[in-house]
Amino acid sequence: MTVPLFDTLAIIGPGLIGSSIARAARAARAQNAVRSIVATARSPKTRARVVELGLADRVVDTNAQAVEGADLVIVCVPVGACGAVAKEIAPHLKAGAVVSDVGSVKASIVRDMGRHLPSTVNFVPAHPVAGTEHSGPDAGFAELFENRWCILTPPEGTDPEAVAKLAAFWRLLGANVEVMTPEHHDLVLAVTSHLPHLIAYTIVGTADELESVTRSEVLKFSAGGFRDFTRIAASDPVMWRDVFLNNKDAVLEMLGRFNEDVAALTKAIRRGDGAALEEHFIRTRAIRRGVIEAGQDTPAPDFGRPHGHEE
Amino acid sequence: MTVPLFDTLAIIGPGLIGSSIARAARAARAQNAVRSIVATARSPKTRARVVELGLADRVVDTNAQAVEGADLVIVCVPVGACGAVAKEIAPHLKAGAVVSDVGSVKASIVRDMGRHLPSTVNFVPAHPVAGTEHSGPDAGFAELFENRWCILTPPEGTDPEAVAKLAAFWRLLGANVEVMTPEHHDLVLAVTSHLPHLIAYTIVGTADELESVTRSEVLKFSAGGFRDFTRIAASDPVMWRDVFLNNKDAVLEMLGRFNEDVAALTKAIRRGDGAALEEHFIRTRAIRRGVIEAGQDTPAPDFGRPHGHEE
Repeated sequence: MTVPLFDTLAIIGPGLIGSSIARAARAARAQNAVRSIVATARSPKTRARVVELGLADRVVDTNAQAVEGADLVIVCVPVGACGAVAKEIAPHLKAGAVVSDVGSVKASIVRDMGRHLPSTVNFVPAHPVAGTEHSGPDAGFAELFENRWCILTPPEGTDPEAVAKLAAFWRLLGANVEVMTPEHHDLVLAVTSHLPHLIAYTIVGTADELESVTRSEVLKFSAGGFRDFTRIAASDPVMWRDVFLNNKDAVLEMLGRFNEDVAALTKAIRRGDGAALEEHFIRTRAIRRGVIEAGQDTPAPDFGRPHGHEE
Repeated sequence: MTVPLFDTLAIIGPGLIGSSIARAARAARAQNAVRSIVATARSPKTRARVVELGLADRVVDTNAQAVEGADLVIVCVPVGACGAVAKEIAPHLKAGAVVSDVGSVKASIVRDMGRHLPSTVNFVPAHPVAGTEHSGPDAGFAELFENRWCILTPPEGTDPEAVAKLAAFWRLLGANVEVMTPEHHDLVLAVTSHLPHLIAYTIVGTADELESVTRSEVLKFSAGGFRDFTRIAASDPVMWRDVFLNNKDAVLEMLGRFNEDVAALTKAIRRGDGAALEEHFIRTRAIRRGVIEAGQDTPAPDFGRPHGHEE
């Protein structure tokens, strides 16, 4: 039997992402990702559910207990809560441990967690770009990270060996790994994730406030495009509140550019400029092909949504 | 054997929607939707493909030939081309025939087709609210309309019996049917379909024009939300150009409201007003539940996108 990559993995906050890490790490056991998993959650109800689901070898009551002796600690709580968790666990961390997270924003995490963590541990922030619109420990599944990207944003001076070890861990879970600066991460995600979510949240709200169209009509006729926005706008409210509060500058920058582009298309519609509209729509269609070629979506129409009466 | 609802069905333009009608009507044959299907397309290549796919009993070269003797004529071409087709087929229509379409805009269709059609036929405009991001005769499938809504917008004075017959036809194809005025249809669809498409087209263009983030990065990290927009922004460019040109007022009205809501959320982000953001996100999550309860999407996370390496 070969030595596991990390002996003990501690997961703080086994929600959609945290519980998927636990499931994937267990599925990867044959390949020796970790020997043992310990988990904890703030709410007793979640802890009880994690026990029921058998997601960890041990479920403990406090963050301090969870990290005691752990070789890899992954903090899976909303971005805004990461600093407080880092402060709480700092005195209990094992020397040489790798400490990571899964936050959708990285510069603020580096700042908020980094200042509390002792120099005896290796802090390697991470962001697996994967998820669904569901949340909680029941929503996770072992395949969530397969063929998705996990971005690592180690602060300057981080031990390269710790980065390599965490990268190997994520690869065992099925992910591809990329390393970049926290600042660049926040800019890239502002456009590929944060702006789309903000726009989806907006448009779903807009539709809900019309006097001329009833909510029942909005729901019934949502298959024309609206339903795809509702899925995105169903994502965890607290998680997303924290994303926008912590990546304010990049999101506002992208919003500014988006507004300019909305104005340009609005003008084309107002003027009846069909050529400008068609040219734009042909260009964006090509980008869809790029997403599929990059392996980030299935070419099946409608994502293979079932169309029969059984749905 | 019972008498079919319509003896001969003529489909002009068997693309995604037209070919799905042909497939669904054949699947519904046991229930006697139609006895025979004749199809035509403008391009010889498409006509040859329709023959190869065996979608119709007869494939003819011209619109005039197609409607000759047909009891139900469904025009399945982009909204902007419907008027010209109506003009062309008008002299060849059988007295008593039902003439319909599948356009995503209805007031302009009533105006553009209506003025050419003789009073000897029954004009019942229709819009099946269903589709995928693919187009062409290969993209269609028989189940496309199952449990989706088909909206009929008969002009004032239309024979109620013709409306009832077309409604029965769509129900045999699996759809639910609703009747409303063309003007109300255009308002409802502006918010549930046209605005979402315009926004998706915009945001995909915005992402493609950044200097600070490469196209390769946009594609790789698209699973964070962006990929869902690329699907919508991959829809047929000509069809969508025509939708925006022909539903200008309602789309501009919805865009105005959307812009106000973007401004409100932007302000909340700029001010760091987490409570306002969270409150908004909790509200939109509830609407997602409504879409699923209305049977217009599957509750499977990510639309049941495959997550394994096989994708």
